Amino acid sequence: MNGTNDAGRPLGVAVLGMGTVGTEVVRVLRDHADDLRSRVGAPLVLRGVAVRDLSKDRGLPAELLTTDAEALLARDDVDLVVEVMGGIDPARKLIGDALAAGKSVVTANKALLADYTGELAAAAESSRADLYFEAAVAGAIPVVRPLIQSLSGDRVNKVVGIVNGTTNFILSAMDETGAAYDDVLAEATDLGYAEADPTADVEGYDAAAKAAILASLAFHTRVTAADVYREGISKITAEDLETASAVGCTVKLLAICERVPGEPSAAEGGKDRVSVRVYPALIPRKHPLASVNGAFNAVVVEADNAGRLMFYGQGAGGAPTASAVLGDLVMAARNKFYGGRAPGESVYAELPIAPIGDTPTRYHVNLQVEDRPGVLAAVADTFAQHGVSISTVRQQGHGDGARLVVVTHHAVESSLADTVAVLAEMDSVTAVTSVLRLEGTEES
Amino acid sequence: MNGTNDAGRPLGVAVLGMGTVGTEVVRVLRDHADDLRSRVGAPLVLRGVAVRDLSKDRGLPAELLTTDAEALLARDDVDLVVEVMGGIDPARKLIGDALAAGKSVVTANKALLADYTGELAAAAESSRADLYFEAAVAGAIPVVRPLIQSLSGDRVNKVVGIVNGTTNFILSAMDETGAAYDDVLAEATDLGYAEADPTADVEGYDAAAKAAILASLAFHTRVTAADVYREGISKITAEDLETASAVGCTVKLLAICERVPGEPSAAEGGKDRVSVRVYPALIPRKHPLASVNGAFNAVVVEADNAGRLMFYGQGAGGAPTASAVLGDLVMAARNKFYGGRAPGESVYAELPIAPIGDTPTRYHVNLQVEDRPGVLAAVADTFAQHGVSISTVRQQGHGDGARLVVVTHHAVESSLADTVAVLAEMDSVTAVTSVLRLEGTEES
Repeated sequence: MNGTNDAGRPLGVAVLGMGTVGTEVVRVLRDHADDLRSRVGAPLVLRGVAVRDLSKDRGLPAELLTTDAEALLARDDVDLVVEVMGGIDPARKLIGDALAAGKSVVTANKALLADYTGELAAAAESSRADLYFEAAVAGAIPVVRPLIQSLSGDRVNKVVGIVNGTTNFILSAMDETGAAYDDVLAEATDLGYAEADPTADVEGYDAAAKAAILASLAFHTRVTAADVYREGISKITAEDLETASAVGCTVKLLAICERVPGEPSAAEGGKDRVSVRVYPALIPRKHPLASVNGAFNAVVVEADNAGRLMFYGQGAGGAPTASAVLGDLVMAARNKFYGGRAPGESVYAELPIAPIGDTPTRYHVNLQVEDRPGVLAAVADTFAQHGVSISTVRQQGHGDGARLVVVTHHAVESSLADTVAVLAEMDSVTAVTSVLRLEGTEES
Repeated sequence: MNGTNDAGRPLGVAVLGMGTVGTEVVRVLRDHADDLRSRVGAPLVLRGVAVRDLSKDRGLPAELLTTDAEALLARDDVDLVVEVMGGIDPARKLIGDALAAGKSVVTANKALLADYTGELAAAAESSRADLYFEAAVAGAIPVVRPLIQSLSGDRVNKVVGIVNGTTNFILSAMDETGAAYDDVLAEATDLGYAEADPTADVEGYDAAAKAAILASLAFHTRVTAADVYREGISKITAEDLETASAVGCTVKLLAICERVPGEPSAAEGGKDRVSVRVYPALIPRKHPLASVNGAFNAVVVEADNAGRLMFYGQGAGGAPTASAVLGDLVMAARNKFYGGRAPGESVYAELPIAPIGDTPTRYHVNLQVEDRPGVLAAVADTFAQHGVSISTVRQQGHGDGARLVVVTHHAVESSLADTVAVLAEMDSVTAVTSVLRLEGTEES
């Protein structure tokens, strides 16, 4: 049975971009053609690869390479498009047009999806094409499909993930070796784990794009990168890791998507809200995400009925990302062949975004203080005056090295910020050394 | 757009069985009807629940309950069937007939699927209905869908899982407390973690059914329960756990599905073979599966491009299993509504099954020996004569308590069995206390 093709008519594939992912996708399309044909029901035939530079040797026949992506996608014998070129432009227009023309698209482009899923999904809807993007979040780890499909009969309350390999490599190395941020970043750059300009990774933009995608899927609500509160790891110090370690924690860059239960009396009429945020946070070493080290990724999903699920694996790299792309490609091709369709965008819930100021978290505040009686009491009083409840205070060191480490109960950011502003002005407080959030503790 | 229904015409659901899973499925269908309608595109309406005993109060209107499952499924207004009654008969005929009549089926019935997926898939194929079964393996943890869809463009080499909660609860408790098997089993029965007749769980039948399903999906090959080599945990002793602990290991009941690379000179013409086996094995405590405790499940998948993935969560229980069932139900309903179809059975690879005797593993052999010089040499010589290479030997205790713990390199079962038979007859060996496999070590 098939809806749109004669039995076995080849399905044409165009690939946009031939970096590490594109190269691996092309290799599998050529080396494993028999397996792919058996799984699809029809052969997948590579029609061409759009690249920027034709002069580079890519081990492909010249007639398969082109710099004219638009012309490649316009070919009648191209049914499926793999977009692994990255960036917003020209990817946005290229795959938007392809979708509108009824070609199904598989993309790994998180930045594009974080802002333009709505537009792309509408284009796909108009022509009944498919838009698949498993590879956009956490590489080979199936997270997008489980959220869209497996959990479609459940209510997701929270998604917490380590979704950026570069920052996780850096934080893991700082934790293991005690080295400073700049030194580890330099090493990561040398090893190819960090880009020459690491901003997108270390400042949390990459993780924020992924958080937007995950939150959209988890809560059936359109969330874009601008909705995500974001802090990077560039201010994390060796001392932060050391202090974390002293309280049985490590520091991870977390992408957190959380359903904030609505209050019946609230303006939104009691509707749940969605909090989406990316920041470095302390997590207890016994937390399942604490042992996710190096370039690995992991995502924890909490749902009403499923309870807590965890997905773990390689979140980046040519081969793992290609695995996710190719899985999507086989599914998109099957739909072309059998006439089915992937689930489209689901944003019916339209939950409002909760501002970061409304999202209570626990805090770990590190103060350098004067070593004299009454300082602890004065500090504690400042927290109390701002309605921030303290869980523990640890006093360590003497003389110039005297420090206070305060761990709070859940507090809203505005109260904490006010507290810190006052602390910074206090005579007995030499410096507010660091303010980090604490996540993953049992306290609700 | 929709293929087979007027826009929004309700889709009728029949549920077979109202145990813990069925009860939760029915609750969500009724309590979360709005969410489900938004996700499907049309309302899901519960047409009836087939139960064995009408007299029990189930909090449902009497007209929704029936003992006549056949009549319920034959109703024209039933489009989708949820089978959570378990057992082979009458489930096999009921859902086979429903599929042949074009009704899509969601089932959690691992025993049925392990032996009759071929027959059921053919019935589904004949009428273009869907057969979904995420809940049959590892409860709420998405494993079936990732194997069928997400990894459809990759080559899976190995699947290793802890897929039975009862045995994992027992082994975890034995590991933690040092208690004997019988005592922990009694406790598990009291707590409701083990059934009155625990045979299906403790003898590995449940895990073997799940292994057959996982292997079928991973290797695109039909694997039935009879193809699975199976040993249970009822012979595991407190001493086994203690010995395991002494070498940095714990004992887990593992379901292992492995691609055994073909040899070009072999009878099958170099085709890969599939080894599927369930047995208790030592695994190093640092292995990701070692920390999966209690009633939790986890599945590790290794694929060419994806590398090693791990899926973790609650593998049993009413709510988690219902989550998986309901996710499948939403997808099956969407297909009914939009005219798509789930991927059918994929068995094109038809890889032969490798007999357990051909599957090399490492072994951990515990011997009670006479405390005199030359015993270690004689034992080592016996292994060597049978071509079993020793990795480590540890001698412990004195006098009547003298023991040898031998860990081998990879060896085939027949060689190991021959070795053990000779050891058992040796004058200097008082007893072969235990022979357990060792899995999850770096050695290939």
